[in-house]
Amino acid sequence: MNTVLAEDIRALQYGPPVAGLKNHLAEMMRERGVDCTGDDILLTTGGQQGIGLWVKLFLNPGGKIIVEEMIYPGFTQVLTPYGAEILTVPTDLQTGMDVDAVAKILAACAKSGDRREMPACIYTIPTGHNPHGATMSMAKRQQLVALARQYEVPIIEDDAYGFLQYDNPLPALRSLDAEWVFYVGSFSKIFGPGVRTGWTITPNSDFYDKANCIKEAMDLEVSGLIQKALLVYLLSGKMPAHLQMLRATYQKRRDLMLQALEEHFPAGAKWNFPNAGMFVWVEMPPHMETMRYLDKAIEEEMVAFVPAIGFAADPTQNASSASHSMRLTFSAVPMDRINAGIAKIAKIFNT
Amino acid sequence: MNTVLAEDIRALQYGPPVAGLKNHLAEMMRERGVDCTGDDILLTTGGQQGIGLWVKLFLNPGGKIIVEEMIYPGFTQVLTPYGAEILTVPTDLQTGMDVDAVAKILAACAKSGDRREMPACIYTIPTGHNPHGATMSMAKRQQLVALARQYEVPIIEDDAYGFLQYDNPLPALRSLDAEWVFYVGSFSKIFGPGVRTGWTITPNSDFYDKANCIKEAMDLEVSGLIQKALLVYLLSGKMPAHLQMLRATYQKRRDLMLQALEEHFPAGAKWNFPNAGMFVWVEMPPHMETMRYLDKAIEEEMVAFVPAIGFAADPTQNASSASHSMRLTFSAVPMDRINAGIAKIAKIFNT
Repeated sequence: MNTVLAEDIRALQYGPPVAGLKNHLAEMMRERGVDCTGDDILLTTGGQQGIGLWVKLFLNPGGKIIVEEMIYPGFTQVLTPYGAEILTVPTDLQTGMDVDAVAKILAACAKSGDRREMPACIYTIPTGHNPHGATMSMAKRQQLVALARQYEVPIIEDDAYGFLQYDNPLPALRSLDAEWVFYVGSFSKIFGPGVRTGWTITPNSDFYDKANCIKEAMDLEVSGLIQKALLVYLLSGKMPAHLQMLRATYQKRRDLMLQALEEHFPAGAKWNFPNAGMFVWVEMPPHMETMRYLDKAIEEEMVAFVPAIGFAADPTQNASSASHSMRLTFSAVPMDRINAGIAKIAKIFNT
Repeated sequence: MNTVLAEDIRALQYGPPVAGLKNHLAEMMRERGVDCTGDDILLTTGGQQGIGLWVKLFLNPGGKIIVEEMIYPGFTQVLTPYGAEILTVPTDLQTGMDVDAVAKILAACAKSGDRREMPACIYTIPTGHNPHGATMSMAKRQQLVALARQYEVPIIEDDAYGFLQYDNPLPALRSLDAEWVFYVGSFSKIFGPGVRTGWTITPNSDFYDKANCIKEAMDLEVSGLIQKALLVYLLSGKMPAHLQMLRATYQKRRDLMLQALEEHFPAGAKWNFPNAGMFVWVEMPPHMETMRYLDKAIEEEMVAFVPAIGFAADPTQNASSASHSMRLTFSAVPMDRINAGIAKIAKIFNT
């Protein structure tokens, strides 16, 4: 920030998007297997605005959209005003979205031959899913992208955790298809939410112009000061080491959390092994409705978790495990407190 | 920024709105005649998001809205996707919006007795209007607010230039009514657009929650870093002197521009005397279609203006003076270049 403000008297003014930042992001996208240029990158006010603008472009009020049963609540906030018909598919906690279920929905919608019966788009976080922590397998990635192409239904790929994969990272869906996958990236989980900066990759200049028009209507532009400061940081070459540090730290915290779960959680509780992101999904025995334990956990033990029900894409549909599951996060808890924290949560469920 | 980052390790994290900033803004609003508390203030990503969220709350697709014939193009970008029925009223270049015309529209819509026939809201920039530079007279302010109350139609008051009044400042519409006026403020014109921060005043906690829900869906929150840095600045006590400096500088530039217009512009050209904001509106003789002179001005004289047609709320309706008017701005031009710049524009129209 000091560098920018010292060198650029116009840093606090309106201005066109910072081309250097867009070019650098295109470069970073190679790590996600994506081949694109700075011209394809549209800067957004965080990933939240990125997902919102694609929904605005694709979904009409009352239209259909395919999502998983448990989704990022910020996406539910985007969806609500559309009164959309929400078509949900299950998620496997290791291999991600049930793409066979997506295929069935698409085939059923296509039967009438009426284009208007087709879902407007598919939304997913294929890597380090929020809330599940699941990462979609390579086979499913290929299958999902093939479906999008076959049925001409766009995929909104929310890749907020894509740079936080711990072993054998998988490429973004966008690397498999540049036409039907609308990629949304974010600095929030790899640099800091306080910069409120994300990006989306547009398939061509026509889509860029449309998306940019929606973005401008929302809030004109991403702060030029922040754009320039991020560019200074990226040009310093510190980002790769920072990402390495994040991955190493989160991986250690994840492992500690999984060990602690093994040690403290009751028989019948199950959880996954997340290879990306920040979350572990725990399914308790069916009689343990997680929502009913939350207040007690906070009041008596000063620990918290997020009951699964808060992530239900359609609370009227009852995902079988929703009532007795929860999301845990290992991102912000210091290593020496993870075991004790998990022990406290377990205590609440064990008494 | 240095202060914030040195003292607050969580400055780049997610967080609740900075209460101190909200309280300080409520304090600042006294200068606009408004009595409110920090709890009434909702922070937005610039004024653009503020106007957008009220439109989202009030206007249904295909609904009616009352605006002036010439409006801020960012508002047109907000409106376009709604396919609204745009009801326009003229603007007097000195006393602002034609409120009698607003009264006529409201009376006509109310005739059927069907609430659905009423306009969803009224949008206006009553102070230092963009593009006109006009400031609504006190009598018209009272009349407009009375209409809003009588017909129960909310007013979106865009007050981006409200702190930039040069003589005898008038209070915000919001000071006259706390229920039907939805105030939108912005740091862009009084601090810097690069902070992408504005605020809106909500009439009660119910509206606050609704507006906040829309804001969160759009982009979660205003950058905490920026919020905290703005608070540091406001607490330093520098803002009043900064506003004084801006007003003194802009007033001088305005006067130089008006003198230059007198000196150089052709007979038959007319302009107003803006008492707020950054703009002078010039109506050229009817045969001088301003759009046709723009390229030449840029190419031959390296000067620019904005042809009025770019501000038309409804380009299918022909505001009588739209084709031969233009917006000039005196905000960013150094004093010693204003006369020469105006002379150059005049030269283009005179040859």
